[in-house]
Amino acid sequence: MNNFEFKNPTKIIFGKDSIEKLANEIPENAKILLLYGGGSIMENGIYDQVKTALADATVIEFGGIPANPEYSVLMEALEVIKTESITFLLAVGGGSVIDGTKFLSAAAMYGGASPWNILTDNIKIEEGLPFGTVLTLPATASEMNSGAVITRAETKEKLAMGGPGLFPQFSILDPQVITSIPERQLANGITDAFTHVLEQYMTYPVGGLLQDRFAESILQTLIEVAPKVIKDPTDYEAASNFMWSCTMALNGLIQQGVPGDWAIHMMGHELTALFGIDHARTLAIMTPSHYKYNFEAKKEKLAQYAERVWKITEGSKDDKAYAAIEKTEAFFHELGIETKLSNYTDDYEGTAETIKQRFTDRGWLGIGEHKSLSPDKVEKIVKMAY
Amino acid sequence: MNNFEFKNPTKIIFGKDSIEKLANEIPENAKILLLYGGGSIMENGIYDQVKTALADATVIEFGGIPANPEYSVLMEALEVIKTESITFLLAVGGGSVIDGTKFLSAAAMYGGASPWNILTDNIKIEEGLPFGTVLTLPATASEMNSGAVITRAETKEKLAMGGPGLFPQFSILDPQVITSIPERQLANGITDAFTHVLEQYMTYPVGGLLQDRFAESILQTLIEVAPKVIKDPTDYEAASNFMWSCTMALNGLIQQGVPGDWAIHMMGHELTALFGIDHARTLAIMTPSHYKYNFEAKKEKLAQYAERVWKITEGSKDDKAYAAIEKTEAFFHELGIETKLSNYTDDYEGTAETIKQRFTDRGWLGIGEHKSLSPDKVEKIVKMAY
Repeated sequence: MNNFEFKNPTKIIFGKDSIEKLANEIPENAKILLLYGGGSIMENGIYDQVKTALADATVIEFGGIPANPEYSVLMEALEVIKTESITFLLAVGGGSVIDGTKFLSAAAMYGGASPWNILTDNIKIEEGLPFGTVLTLPATASEMNSGAVITRAETKEKLAMGGPGLFPQFSILDPQVITSIPERQLANGITDAFTHVLEQYMTYPVGGLLQDRFAESILQTLIEVAPKVIKDPTDYEAASNFMWSCTMALNGLIQQGVPGDWAIHMMGHELTALFGIDHARTLAIMTPSHYKYNFEAKKEKLAQYAERVWKITEGSKDDKAYAAIEKTEAFFHELGIETKLSNYTDDYEGTAETIKQRFTDRGWLGIGEHKSLSPDKVEKIVKMAY
Repeated sequence: MNNFEFKNPTKIIFGKDSIEKLANEIPENAKILLLYGGGSIMENGIYDQVKTALADATVIEFGGIPANPEYSVLMEALEVIKTESITFLLAVGGGSVIDGTKFLSAAAMYGGASPWNILTDNIKIEEGLPFGTVLTLPATASEMNSGAVITRAETKEKLAMGGPGLFPQFSILDPQVITSIPERQLANGITDAFTHVLEQYMTYPVGGLLQDRFAESILQTLIEVAPKVIKDPTDYEAASNFMWSCTMALNGLIQQGVPGDWAIHMMGHELTALFGIDHARTLAIMTPSHYKYNFEAKKEKLAQYAERVWKITEGSKDDKAYAAIEKTEAFFHELGIETKLSNYTDDYEGTAETIKQRFTDRGWLGIGEHKSLSPDKVEKIVKMAY
């Protein structure tokens, strides 16, 4: 097991009707900016629940944060924060709204020339404007971690940021929100969380026995509840386990003491930036070809995953490892998620070369858990995913 | 899954040679009281490591905190805290030293007549004197939770306390400390952590699918590493997984959203108070008879535990459930831990009646996950454990 440091101070308020508890968590006399996305919270009743809980508070609103939170939109919100002297941010939404709020938390306190530099210069955020979240879409675990990914349409870039100052002070998770989420978004959420676990687990053994078992626990739970959540989002047992699994998949716990891969995300982000493909679907596109290309390096863990998660007992280690990749791809298919780039765009030719060039330009000369995947190798993996 | 609220702000610094990082975690200009136990840290080099790391700090020492931290000794430490105007407590030890330090953290800020009232009046501690820990004995998870158990010899009492103000600010976990722990203490630590998980898992199903799998992960890991830790404490892979499993067993995570039992602990504490039997060994004494007596209420989870943890696939649900109890008892025996009260004392007659009376006197009229175990039933369970 590798050395690690772990601290996660976010308070989780989980369960039925937990949005009612919102006002207890925000400082009295706060001037709140309520941030949300495309307006689905108006239709599903969550907006009303939040407004009722905050009836006695000073609340200004900023809606319209898009999926893959867009820098230019966030800059408008930053203007509101400054002109209105906002003291607390409240994200009501999924990973995009929460990630956008984290950017705003950091940007509001940032003294540099342009807030975009927070992303390009990898500035570690030690302190941000305080914020909390009401989660409406389980998927990213942004509600209990300190990272964010921001997109800039102008330059077709999608970059990560974070730091210990960007943990939400609290996050409210009411699994009942799942009842109003479209099936497409549910499938995306399951796929996103599943891949988050894989990125932290499907590397090489370092003796993180407990971490491996925790990762396998989340994968098994997602496999168990996925069909139930899709079939009947009012199934509270399935919904609550789905929601908690998504949070645990990327709140920092399972990554402690073990290597992380994250190559799937780095390649997937490019597909979103280039084609606007849903984040989760880009991960499903990249996962099988990444594991096939890096089969030798990953086969120990692939075989363990095959045995423990998919209960594959027959065949050699190689057979099991390969079968696990096929099981994973089949799992995505059962969720209605296609796993080839050509399922999403006819304009895929040249994508691998473009991504290779972008990685080279950014100096990303080796990605993955061994930092050994050069832009040339990335090109080959992306091409395998056509 | 039940509703829950979860927040655990303790910073964990885990790994080889992590004691070196101690000074970074304590506020500059702090006046530190270094608390420890019977002096084993002098022999195993941990004291020297701590003193070296704190070479530039103001440190006063208080040693001699016994196993089952004793109120009268802690009151002497409290006097030192007050007369020396201590601003930071540093526990260097196992669960007893850390629990004692939590009591001192609370007592230093307590305005009531007698600090013992913190325990008898169940006062929830919202703020304590800041403290950190260097863990020398994995077992209790006190290093990452906000609870403590304090013993008072004068009255033969052992009572619990806690509150959100009693999380350590940081805990340093270097698995290398295990190399100097006597086998008896290692066996106790494994048994303690194992039983902590059982208390939060072996109840009745409430659809906490992920919590169940996490609990099973810790149990499986402990079963896997226990013989290795006992055989060779220098086996770092085994030691690090043992240490992290103990912390995860009772840092609050696996208890969220599910019922807790804790009857084993409540009965076990009496055996320590009456006979001075090691805490972990009292748990091993009470576990089999508790599960046998409450077999019908617990058999769903016992059978799941049999299948998933002990890989018992043959027989009816009842067969599996019963076999799991036998496997658990055999696991304790393999660690050299006896599971009958009469293995520890010849003076056991009347114990069940005494404990029944104590529970009645304290108004503990129903314990366990259903609060259905009356003092009469407790008497029967304890008698089964003779």
